[in-house]
Amino acid sequence: MKSFILVLVVAFAVAAIVLPITRPTVAASPRATPETLEQLEAEFMKAAAQKGSQGYMSYYADDAVEVPNGAPLIQGKSEIAKGMGFLDDKNNSLLWMPLGADISSSGDLGYTYGTFEFHSKDNDGKPVVQHGKYTSIWKRQKDGSWKVVLDMGNASPEPK
Amino acid sequence: MKSFILVLVVAFAVAAIVLPITRPTVAASPRATPETLEQLEAEFMKAAAQKGSQGYMSYYADDAVEVPNGAPLIQGKSEIAKGMGFLDDKNNSLLWMPLGADISSSGDLGYTYGTFEFHSKDNDGKPVVQHGKYTSIWKRQKDGSWKVVLDMGNASPEPK
Repeated sequence: MKSFILVLVVAFAVAAIVLPITRPTVAASPRATPETLEQLEAEFMKAAAQKGSQGYMSYYADDAVEVPNGAPLIQGKSEIAKGMGFLDDKNNSLLWMPLGADISSSGDLGYTYGTFEFHSKDNDGKPVVQHGKYTSIWKRQKDGSWKVVLDMGNASPEPK
Repeated sequence: MKSFILVLVVAFAVAAIVLPITRPTVAASPRATPETLEQLEAEFMKAAAQKGSQGYMSYYADDAVEVPNGAPLIQGKSEIAKGMGFLDDKNNSLLWMPLGADISSSGDLGYTYGTFEFHSKDNDGKPVVQHGKYTSIWKRQKDGSWKVVLDMGNASPEPK
């Protein structure tokens, strides 16, 4: 009987050692939080400001979907990139600010939403600003990086 | 030596029994898929058609965010509900069709996107249809139900 108890004690000791090793690997990497996504958005905006459309598109997943206001839905990064050349014009700049974010308990899918300003110049060279809102959905990719899988924009009233 | 091997064998046998019990409980409930969300959207639309704004709002989480086109962002179900009375006018109907959906690996956060049609009547009583696109973000609530935590709409070009 005593040796059976010894077997059980050692068994649970081994189980205690084996258990943490077999837990899902997601716990091994730093856990993404809503703040992770807000930080990503700051990097995303910086990339667009510094490298134009190329910097902007580097944050898009290959299978991303763009849901533009007043235009049809666009499927796929390469198709979306065709309409982003305006970010390479030095008269234009796109600025955005997340107002909120959330992430799944598995830390592999999340979203941000907020407001944006698009600064450009009219035909007379006068600066104009368009105001809008956005939602971006972020998904952790197989290589561990986070990419935008859906981006949608719409219009806000002009500030008074 | 033999008894040590026996201890190890029994130890791993116990570990094999203990391991499945300690896995995350999420696997215990039927796993939500992108199709689950598309099915939910069909029920959501039916509720709006049958019960107007009350049916529509029953699919919103208390802390939901509405991101309407041409208007400021609205925070919270009770604030959003104030603008949904138009769904109680029998001349109006809102129809939508998901084009795609995805869900986190934990099955607690997902999204759908697609197109919508808003059918109403103009001042002369003539039927009019507005076309648009939407993104809805769904989150599994503590009671196991799924609710919309963010809904955003924008305009589509008129079909030719």
